[in-house]
Amino acid sequence: MKKILTILLLLPGLSFGQTHEANIKKIYDTELSAGHTYDNLRFLCKEIGNRLAGSPGAAAAVEWTRQLMESYGFDTVYLQPVMVPHWVRGGKDVVKIVNSQKHGTLELSALALGNTQGTGPKGLLGQVVEVKSIDHLKSLGMQVKGKIVFFNGPMDPTKVDAFEAYGGANAQRSSGAAEASKLGAIGSIVRSLSNRIDDIPHTGNQRYAADFPKIPALAISTQDAELLSDLLEDQSDLTLYLESHGQMLEEKLSYNVIGEIRGSEKPEEIIAVGGHLDSWDVGEGAHDDGAGCMQAIEVLRIYKQLGWKPKRTIRAVMWMNEENGLRGGQEYAKVAKEKGEKHIAAIESDSGGFLPTGFSSTGTDAQREKLASWVSYFLPYQVWSLNKPGGGADIGPLRDQGPILIGLEPDSQKYFIYHHTEADVFEAVDQRELELGAAAMTALVYLIEQEGI
Amino acid sequence: MKKILTILLLLPGLSFGQTHEANIKKIYDTELSAGHTYDNLRFLCKEIGNRLAGSPGAAAAVEWTRQLMESYGFDTVYLQPVMVPHWVRGGKDVVKIVNSQKHGTLELSALALGNTQGTGPKGLLGQVVEVKSIDHLKSLGMQVKGKIVFFNGPMDPTKVDAFEAYGGANAQRSSGAAEASKLGAIGSIVRSLSNRIDDIPHTGNQRYAADFPKIPALAISTQDAELLSDLLEDQSDLTLYLESHGQMLEEKLSYNVIGEIRGSEKPEEIIAVGGHLDSWDVGEGAHDDGAGCMQAIEVLRIYKQLGWKPKRTIRAVMWMNEENGLRGGQEYAKVAKEKGEKHIAAIESDSGGFLPTGFSSTGTDAQREKLASWVSYFLPYQVWSLNKPGGGADIGPLRDQGPILIGLEPDSQKYFIYHHTEADVFEAVDQRELELGAAAMTALVYLIEQEGI
Repeated sequence: MKKILTILLLLPGLSFGQTHEANIKKIYDTELSAGHTYDNLRFLCKEIGNRLAGSPGAAAAVEWTRQLMESYGFDTVYLQPVMVPHWVRGGKDVVKIVNSQKHGTLELSALALGNTQGTGPKGLLGQVVEVKSIDHLKSLGMQVKGKIVFFNGPMDPTKVDAFEAYGGANAQRSSGAAEASKLGAIGSIVRSLSNRIDDIPHTGNQRYAADFPKIPALAISTQDAELLSDLLEDQSDLTLYLESHGQMLEEKLSYNVIGEIRGSEKPEEIIAVGGHLDSWDVGEGAHDDGAGCMQAIEVLRIYKQLGWKPKRTIRAVMWMNEENGLRGGQEYAKVAKEKGEKHIAAIESDSGGFLPTGFSSTGTDAQREKLASWVSYFLPYQVWSLNKPGGGADIGPLRDQGPILIGLEPDSQKYFIYHHTEADVFEAVDQRELELGAAAMTALVYLIEQEGI
Repeated sequence: MKKILTILLLLPGLSFGQTHEANIKKIYDTELSAGHTYDNLRFLCKEIGNRLAGSPGAAAAVEWTRQLMESYGFDTVYLQPVMVPHWVRGGKDVVKIVNSQKHGTLELSALALGNTQGTGPKGLLGQVVEVKSIDHLKSLGMQVKGKIVFFNGPMDPTKVDAFEAYGGANAQRSSGAAEASKLGAIGSIVRSLSNRIDDIPHTGNQRYAADFPKIPALAISTQDAELLSDLLEDQSDLTLYLESHGQMLEEKLSYNVIGEIRGSEKPEEIIAVGGHLDSWDVGEGAHDDGAGCMQAIEVLRIYKQLGWKPKRTIRAVMWMNEENGLRGGQEYAKVAKEKGEKHIAAIESDSGGFLPTGFSSTGTDAQREKLASWVSYFLPYQVWSLNKPGGGADIGPLRDQGPILIGLEPDSQKYFIYHHTEADVFEAVDQRELELGAAAMTALVYLIEQEGI
């Protein structure tokens, strides 16, 4: 700590400078030499851990982030009530091949998808049919009746943006069970949405279709998906045993957690910056999205450390229930409209605590051009891409209220190694990459509170 | 493998296309769906391991890379003899505090620097004096006589480019012992050149001054450097015990390993692309620089896989002895001059197998402008920075022969976690990031062989 203080004392000065360039350098220097983001993320991951909406972990995270923001002396810190779905995994998930000529019985690495109805302890037996996509499933029609559908479309490795590859494959997970059920299937499994071949299953959200049976839906690891596919080539009558215990319980009261520093000149103009506080129920939700939450709090904390007052109001928001309901994002937008609040920008970091490369956005041409015009402020920090379309799940519901919606865009190559898995833990986050993201977000908030958008 | 072949068959076609954009897409698609870089790096790291110049590992790496390039059917594969220094560590390195009032005797995590003369088994005792830099040392003058100098200047965390922070701190390691010896010091230790506080010591090269004693020089981990510095605040008479066993043996015969595909139109114009095959004697030399070597071989392999013939000659070069002598780079340039070869470009990947962000270069304005003009070919692949000055150690000696010197510039944030340590192993390299680097280098070589520079 002594060393950190020494470095800070050597900085040219913490007071507000003459140019945007000088102030942005102060932001970066402060974060890179004395940031709190990494230690805060450590606490969230190691002391609280995972925090699916409705879980004790989520409740603990709400209270801890509230106290954390109060400890930093933000002008206002409050909880915004929101009812959330409450899904529980309920037990160990099992996918077994029971009649392999080559292996006999073989258990695969599996994890039930979120919001699924479990088989219960009796499990479920069925012959498996492999498809590569929803379209492929539909082409088989009623051939899948009474069977377990195995969705095995890989993420396209030739997509350089891994989110694009994810986007091309995730319908299998989000609506595979629903579509299979419409055709009479009795269960479904899906290849994990990962761009790496390994033994880690990835959970994630799925939605059942109304008026059709809620069939079990589980993910298996990419390695086991490859294995199962290979075995099916030689033996088309493979039978699987599925067991899962998921249940949707009664909705629960939870909260968005909000902290703000009031603007000194235009307090009515609000810049929201945040992440989602909930995570899946495995791992520690480090990249998804502890990183984004701790970065958002850091934006305001840097203002406090530097003793700066923003011209416009800046607000850190920890949205609840992004993963399996988006209730927090919806409630936040609804309340903002009811209160007549005026958001000029909403910024979300929910793509992992990796090296920041730019910001994506949705807004008017004028808003997006103003954002892009700031690229020269960011290039010294290797943040170069300010033109990409995009935004974020939790800020989407604010769209019709007019703010520009902005997403932090970190390098995407490694996100889907960790996404929705046991492996998404604090140790998977690099301190400097996380801090560079926090500094980039602070610099952006600074430009918006100074210049408007 | 079946899956990979399926993907390849679905590609629009492997033959040479009509536009540079289309051909560069073929390069990327080939590498990201069916590249060999990662598996080759696995072999180099896991089957051969570390490979300091003169070691059995280096000899094995020479023979294996020769065979590998022959197996790919390059037009010519050959070894270029070069005499290299042969330093051996000789035993376990020890740095101990022997008289701490707080801890008694305390062993620190230590690793002798390369090319150092060891203390031998009797070791060395001396009082320790902390300095923050070479200038700080010089200001103390003869006060360090008879003592052990402790260089404790951290890498500046506010430098976003970690190589810049490294550049600001590495004189302590490379010439600290030499400067301390000139002032009568009997030994030296240096804070590891890492931007993370951890318990891993980092070795690296150092050079003694002629006509002054070759005093022992060891690195300690950043964590232990912080600890030692804290202890010195309370107890200025701390005494250290140093033990190391380094010896410089007789020079040995080794080789640069070279493979080339002859140009179809201007074979006399050579584009060299490479990395250095040697590594330090700890870890596996995965990022430094197995990654660069395997990427360079991959450039030529992709040409073979696509069935393309370059207009100009492309040559993969594995330089030997970058780490503690640079003899391979010097010999390569000398032989090129003697043979009257005409290099138009020399490209090196020696900054780790991380996400590629651009290329740095040294050359004429015309050469550098031509390079920069190609940025639009790279932006779809998130490679954006083509203006930075730079190059590479092994290609530097070619400078006066006129080629543009180009360095692959990956994200620098994590390089100095692994650099010159036990932690620089295969598992520290991400497959997609490594492949994106190989594809970027191949795309660059493609543009140069097509268009000249």
